[in-house]
Amino acid sequence: MEKKGILEHRKNSPCALFDKPQSNCGVAAVYGATDASHLVYLSLYALQHRGQESAGIVSSDGQRVYRQVGQGLVADVFAKTEILAQLNGHMAIGHNRYSTTGSTLVLNAQPLLFRSKLGPFAVSHNGNFTNSGILRNQLEDQGSLFQTTTDTEIVPHLVARSHKKTQTEKIIEALQQLRGAYSLAMLTRDRLYAARDPHGVRPLCLGRKDTTYFVVSESCALDLLRAEYIRDVLPGELIEIGPEGLVSHFFAQEQHSYSCIFEYIYFARPDSRIFNDNVDKVRRKLGKILALESPVDADIVISVPDSSNTAAVGFSRRSGIKFELGLIRNHYIGRTFIQPHQTMRDFGVRVKFNTVNGILQNRRVVVVEDSIVRGTTLRQLVQLIRQAGATEVHVRVSSPPIISPCFYGMDFPNKEELIAAQMSVDEIRCYLKCDSLAYLSHEGLLQAAADSKCEFCSACFTGLYPIEIEDHIGKFQHENEPGS
Amino acid sequence: MEKKGILEHRKNSPCALFDKPQSNCGVAAVYGATDASHLVYLSLYALQHRGQESAGIVSSDGQRVYRQVGQGLVADVFAKTEILAQLNGHMAIGHNRYSTTGSTLVLNAQPLLFRSKLGPFAVSHNGNFTNSGILRNQLEDQGSLFQTTTDTEIVPHLVARSHKKTQTEKIIEALQQLRGAYSLAMLTRDRLYAARDPHGVRPLCLGRKDTTYFVVSESCALDLLRAEYIRDVLPGELIEIGPEGLVSHFFAQEQHSYSCIFEYIYFARPDSRIFNDNVDKVRRKLGKILALESPVDADIVISVPDSSNTAAVGFSRRSGIKFELGLIRNHYIGRTFIQPHQTMRDFGVRVKFNTVNGILQNRRVVVVEDSIVRGTTLRQLVQLIRQAGATEVHVRVSSPPIISPCFYGMDFPNKEELIAAQMSVDEIRCYLKCDSLAYLSHEGLLQAAADSKCEFCSACFTGLYPIEIEDHIGKFQHENEPGS
Amino acid sequence: MEKKGILEHRKNSPCALFDKPQSNCGVAAVYGATDASHLVYLSLYALQHRGQESAGIVSSDGQRVYRQVGQGLVADVFAKTEILAQLNGHMAIGHNRYSTTGSTLVLNAQPLLFRSKLGPFAVSHNGNFTNSGILRNQLEDQGSLFQTTTDTEIVPHLVARSHKKTQTEKIIEALQQLRGAYSLAMLTRDRLYAARDPHGVRPLCLGRKDTTYFVVSESCALDLLRAEYIRDVLPGELIEIGPEGLVSHFFAQEQHSYSCIFEYIYFARPDSRIFNDNVDKVRRKLGKILALESPVDADIVISVPDSSNTAAVGFSRRSGIKFELGLIRNHYIGRTFIQPHQTMRDFGVRVKFNTVNGILQNRRVVVVEDSIVRGTTLRQLVQLIRQAGATEVHVRVSSPPIISPCFYGMDFPNKEELIAAQMSVDEIRCYLKCDSLAYLSHEGLLQAAADSKCEFCSACFTGLYPIEIEDHIGKFQHENEPGS
Amino acid sequence: MEKKGILEHRKNSPCALFDKPQSNCGVAAVYGATDASHLVYLSLYALQHRGQESAGIVSSDGQRVYRQVGQGLVADVFAKTEILAQLNGHMAIGHNRYSTTGSTLVLNAQPLLFRSKLGPFAVSHNGNFTNSGILRNQLEDQGSLFQTTTDTEIVPHLVARSHKKTQTEKIIEALQQLRGAYSLAMLTRDRLYAARDPHGVRPLCLGRKDTTYFVVSESCALDLLRAEYIRDVLPGELIEIGPEGLVSHFFAQEQHSYSCIFEYIYFARPDSRIFNDNVDKVRRKLGKILALESPVDADIVISVPDSSNTAAVGFSRRSGIKFELGLIRNHYIGRTFIQPHQTMRDFGVRVKFNTVNGILQNRRVVVVEDSIVRGTTLRQLVQLIRQAGATEVHVRVSSPPIISPCFYGMDFPNKEELIAAQMSVDEIRCYLKCDSLAYLSHEGLLQAAADSKCEFCSACFTGLYPIEIEDHIGKFQHENEPGS
Repeated sequence: MEKKGILEHRKNSPCALFDKPQSNCGVAAVYGATDASHLVYLSLYALQHRGQESAGIVSSDGQRVYRQVGQGLVADVFAKTEILAQLNGHMAIGHNRYSTTGSTLVLNAQPLLFRSKLGPFAVSHNGNFTNSGILRNQLEDQGSLFQTTTDTEIVPHLVARSHKKTQTEKIIEALQQLRGAYSLAMLTRDRLYAARDPHGVRPLCLGRKDTTYFVVSESCALDLLRAEYIRDVLPGELIEIGPEGLVSHFFAQEQHSYSCIFEYIYFARPDSRIFNDNVDKVRRKLGKILALESPVDADIVISVPDSSNTAAVGFSRRSGIKFELGLIRNHYIGRTFIQPHQTMRDFGVRVKFNTVNGILQNRRVVVVEDSIVRGTTLRQLVQLIRQAGATEVHVRVSSPPIISPCFYGMDFPNKEELIAAQMSVDEIRCYLKCDSLAYLSHEGLLQAAADSKCEFCSACFTGLYPIEIEDHIGKFQHENEPGS
Repeated sequence: MEKKGILEHRKNSPCALFDKPQSNCGVAAVYGATDASHLVYLSLYALQHRGQESAGIVSSDGQRVYRQVGQGLVADVFAKTEILAQLNGHMAIGHNRYSTTGSTLVLNAQPLLFRSKLGPFAVSHNGNFTNSGILRNQLEDQGSLFQTTTDTEIVPHLVARSHKKTQTEKIIEALQQLRGAYSLAMLTRDRLYAARDPHGVRPLCLGRKDTTYFVVSESCALDLLRAEYIRDVLPGELIEIGPEGLVSHFFAQEQHSYSCIFEYIYFARPDSRIFNDNVDKVRRKLGKILALESPVDADIVISVPDSSNTAAVGFSRRSGIKFELGLIRNHYIGRTFIQPHQTMRDFGVRVKFNTVNGILQNRRVVVVEDSIVRGTTLRQLVQLIRQAGATEVHVRVSSPPIISPCFYGMDFPNKEELIAAQMSVDEIRCYLKCDSLAYLSHEGLLQAAADSKCEFCSACFTGLYPIEIEDHIGKFQHENEPGS
Repeated sequence: MEKKGILEHRKNSPCALFDKPQSNCGVAAVYGATDASHLVYLSLYALQHRGQESAGIVSSDGQRVYRQVGQGLVADVFAKTEILAQLNGHMAIGHNRYSTTGSTLVLNAQPLLFRSKLGPFAVSHNGNFTNSGILRNQLEDQGSLFQTTTDTEIVPHLVARSHKKTQTEKIIEALQQLRGAYSLAMLTRDRLYAARDPHGVRPLCLGRKDTTYFVVSESCALDLLRAEYIRDVLPGELIEIGPEGLVSHFFAQEQHSYSCIFEYIYFARPDSRIFNDNVDKVRRKLGKILALESPVDADIVISVPDSSNTAAVGFSRRSGIKFELGLIRNHYIGRTFIQPHQTMRDFGVRVKFNTVNGILQNRRVVVVEDSIVRGTTLRQLVQLIRQAGATEVHVRVSSPPIISPCFYGMDFPNKEELIAAQMSVDEIRCYLKCDSLAYLSHEGLLQAAADSKCEFCSACFTGLYPIEIEDHIGKFQHENEPGS
Repeated sequence: MEKKGILEHRKNSPCALFDKPQSNCGVAAVYGATDASHLVYLSLYALQHRGQESAGIVSSDGQRVYRQVGQGLVADVFAKTEILAQLNGHMAIGHNRYSTTGSTLVLNAQPLLFRSKLGPFAVSHNGNFTNSGILRNQLEDQGSLFQTTTDTEIVPHLVARSHKKTQTEKIIEALQQLRGAYSLAMLTRDRLYAARDPHGVRPLCLGRKDTTYFVVSESCALDLLRAEYIRDVLPGELIEIGPEGLVSHFFAQEQHSYSCIFEYIYFARPDSRIFNDNVDKVRRKLGKILALESPVDADIVISVPDSSNTAAVGFSRRSGIKFELGLIRNHYIGRTFIQPHQTMRDFGVRVKFNTVNGILQNRRVVVVEDSIVRGTTLRQLVQLIRQAGATEVHVRVSSPPIISPCFYGMDFPNKEELIAAQMSVDEIRCYLKCDSLAYLSHEGLLQAAADSKCEFCSACFTGLYPIEIEDHIGKFQHENEPGS
């Protein structure tokens, strides 16, 4: 992902309007198909929810390497068939990226492609290095030139600098220097690599169909391609796929899993299987445990669609309160919805959601929401639901209060803007103007994900960071040269 | 909408992939706001589900008239703030349009704008004239030149030809010559008009907020704008809004309502109120009556999202079978999703839907679908659901079998492609490879909509056309000049 | 051409910077070639000097009609081979257009294409109707709708309104109602028409190559296509070309030639033959007669390139003063050269011209210029030439003083801005800061063109308008609706 | 310039149609103006003849660095005022580039901009390194990653690798490693650098206006900006301009001038002063000496416009045969003129040139051409001139036969395609079908340029290469990865 100062999180992202954490790009890689770029294209399409700002593919036919990146949705970047047709070859990697406006966008779009001694080298990255400032400083001291403002660019530089003999050894040496959270797909002229950080923070899984291998961020992409889910790429594993088949390397001394529990709560698609469990199943348990922990006497349960649907159904099932479709979401949000007028800002949340009045009128309503960041959207929703005639509005949140930013690849706002870092639950209830408010407990959260047998990073809920943040503020911040 | 031969329906629309009837544009009009075009923009955004292929706005400041149209979603056509900013004036009309690829698109994009003796005249149209061939022939005999291939262009020509004195009288004379289904918004330099055909086939409603008037296809647009729903524009009513306020004219000898019942079944947004009733309420009743008419012994009810959600909840509620989210829909379909390869066509429906495996495994599943056109998508879905482990798959359709095309503004395929026009219900069941199949009865359908006190057109289910089709095949077909 | 108030001439055209009259579109038509649109494309390319703002082609294969128009140079509008490839058919017409910025541009781009009772009808126009206001008013009174703001659109309306039986008779009836200056190319589904006004103001000539016919504004287009120049289309002649061959009709009672003498002075390409004589030959005579009328004692003769080159060579030959290339013109002016800064305006003429210092230093210089409109550019050039070391600068103009605007298709500025309408020759000399100034006499002008045996309109030099201006100011001015 | 194999020259460049050597980019740099990018823009405009394929500017305000590059003419790339407006700062460098189609274009467009330890570093380059393969290999061995396929990218890598302390010392160390021909402009956050290779092959000159410094490829850019020409940047000189003023460094052991004499013959604008002499003056002498060496009995002298105009005037002056404008050149060639049809290729040269028939008829014509590469265009021209009625056609070439490719920045075709490398002069005369043919002698060439006191590279005429070509074929060729 794009590099920023560790505590400097952007406030005005296009989607900040809707008050969800951002980030979490999607990566995909295919080896051994006559039309590898077409399969990567479809994978990226299935992973579109992980990033909508730019998309790209690099392919190789063993001789030449081809690249195409662009702004916007996968379906728009590759809207013309001739573009995909030019991405020849039996192997390809791709990337969906959230983030960033302005002219830097296309420059930073992934997969990045470089030419070095060993030939072309392309890389797609989901995550965040926590020592990128230090590494970039070292590399620049040695005379490396940087072309982008992404931390991803560190990877090819480290590989190119390695004095190891083989491409694979060079990559391993590079990975051993990286800290933080990352799922990577890499492509050289004749082979494919995929790696996951030693803590397995971001998901990455391996699939196969006949003699074709797939490495994708989430298993839903395998479903679309009718490929078989084999297993997760393991923490600290580097997978190498070439003409002679698949080889697995383990590059880290210790692998202690700290998987991002927020993937289960919000990011991943409910039909995906990540971290050894079905997202849908965990998400439904979040709702069930929430219903147990914080029951409420009400007539209907509604969800803030679509991300809270599963938890809301779980809440309904356990509480016995019937599930209703009380909010309609407008899916035609477009890449570039504009709030046309300063004075029209107050239309706010209505642009995205509308109430179904007949359902809410004279009802005591439980609203299930997966998480609260700033609270701005939810506050408007509560008001909307009341205007539709609800007599009571009870908010139930299927995750604990978010009190701390993420340094491992999610893009939360500053601590100052995290409502739960600034207010007590009761103060938040007052702010939201709801009749009651309850969050899921941290224990409840872990319990819901227990079947995965993973250990999790829940630093955003606890402030306890399991992986060291080597970069310090100011030390590594590169100016962002606009216009370039 | 765009004119075609009455029985010549297109087969290869981009969304034909997903096997739903097409058409049903959206219209919006605003009078009396300092930023009328901004409010029309938001209205079109709320009505985006009625047409995604092009969008446009014409505004007037009483002196000058401004126009902007383009291909794609409203949010994309008006993505640059300066475009909206140029659409000055206190009054504006807009249009969302489904349909048509190629270079003719922008030419045919609405609102159309013409200049005549009386000054500029703009028009937005939802519906289909059933005597457009005859009228166009007459107009051309008299020396009228046509610029587009839309039947909408007949309206300004009739108005310009009228020998009546006032603009309003001219418009009334024009409307009296039109047959078929239409909801129209019209704009001159200093006033706004809205009309609905004498049979009220397509919805159109009137709203107000302070001193601003709104006329929109569905009430969900009023909700977004926080405007009050006043009433439906009545069948055979012409509303005129100018500096002196709102005046209502009735231009038809008889007004017998034949509202399109398919609006309730599929087209309209569930949070809209049309034809005097809430769409959500009717749709839920469709599901409930369906459950009564065709019960089934099963473990879960799932919906084909999103259009069948409400009926599925209704089915669940009445049958007591629990509602589950068994299918996930990918909303990032993009304007231009391509099936990248001929050999990849079989990925088909997976591009749009995926199953949530944990939910379907070892379950007897009821799938509620709002309607079946060709059956191609549903057949793939049934297979998908079985592959996810369902032991039985029972299809329940919340509308009767579609056996006849629509001449009033919906774009069904040919009778030859309508599966229910070619097969019996049992044959369809075999084709779909489901364990049981049941459609809602025609009586059940009317019963669900009974509270509206409307009479309905259900010709697509019965073949009985309540409004005469004056045009005959071949008589009025204009060549479609490509490249222009 | 685009309609404006007769005395309201635009001041800020992009090329006004260079102080030449504007206008004079180019038209081209081809019948009887397998790739007619390709030949029209090349014709337009040869006629590019007559208009650089938009270009377009309409073709017909006898069944369907195809249209493509766009902003900019012909080579840019048709830069993609597939665009030309789509313009099928054995017949085509095209148009180069000067003028107009903003969104109205594409709407007004020619050839215009309409659909009427008789099928498609396309038209390209070079010239200016002097009764377009009256005709448009009449047509609108009868219910005609106008789509563009061009006076060209009157032609198809008149044709469509005609009650004559055949297409040809209808066109003749339409032409008989038009006044002013025009050269027209028209296309229907299966035949081609070309017409020239009864006074032959604008050039139009007929060519042939094997069985292919060509009608083009200037003969230089025939040269490019290796076609044979047959003859000029005659004043008041309508040429009809169809499957049965070429037929000539004469539609005017009287034909008295008033050809635009400015075509010889500036507009036409020197390698063209128009009005029965070679432009180069006439232009050289202008220089020779000028040298006789206004001799000067000097060392070198230079031209303001490229339009004055031929006259300067003529001046040199007759005067015996040697011809030099003292000014270099930058031809990479681009479609959209911007004067980047208000404070940089004074770079002015240097953007287009530079002096060759070695040639001008210590020389007494005669500068030959074809015409002076405002004088602003020439004033800067005189200064530039002095800065390059010229000891004397004598300006010789190969046309008389311009004192009156043109209503027949040229775009001069207002009388207030025509320097010769406001100042005496001696005052102009002072303004230009040259040592001497002389214009060609009116007699000399006519003498140079005498071999053509034509009579000429020289109203811009005399104020005597040979063709009545029926429109009066204000009476016919249509508001220009921006944004449409 | 873009890197290719030294003997592998491209054959199908868009302008290959017109049979002139290609290459020779233009560079410009400005320091000390409030709107430096605007001045660079105007400079590039004046230097447009040196490259029309892409253009770009990098500016700095001392804090931030801004970049904009694009395909096409300067006036088109910077057509929107806001683009220039974003290029803030008191210093800027720019580049015009010939060459190359396809997707690699924008990637390779200059100025290149990199980020290194010392901050941003931008570079514009005119010329060709003769050891770029060796250097690139070395750099890649040390772990450098390359982003483009240009040899220019070597410069920032060498600078970044340098262990010298200051930016200036680093640049000098980098320059000392480069071999071949180059004129460079470089920009860091707060200072500007300009360098010329120790042999002064390509021109580069220094100008000033008040407190603003300019470094441009040719002095014609200074004229446009009304800046004073100070002197040429000297062979082996590095100029450094910063807040403290201008400092000159000499980085080469020996500086022996081998200036490219082809700049005088064809490349440079006639109004420029390069290599200590006026181009116009030298070019006129070429014509005069040619007239002395190879006289001919004829009626008129014509030029192949515009590049041969000056030499033709010189020939006319010395021979006494009168100069005529017998060929008209179409300047509206557009960026992308397409030969629309395979079967229409034979229109060939007519697309660019037309004859003025009245001038050529029954005349014995001398055609002066500056150089002959393949001879294809000239052969067509001779035929054209005969068709226009010339009784004799004598070709006189104002340079010697071209027999050898250039390794210092010009893009000639292969030796196999150089007509003079394959045929004797008499054979060429037969091929051209002219009545006589004569080239300027090598001695005549040097005599014409003698006033400059420079020594020249004339390797293209002699095959003697004064600067060693260190790269050998195959050794350094990087695959050109298409699609990237």
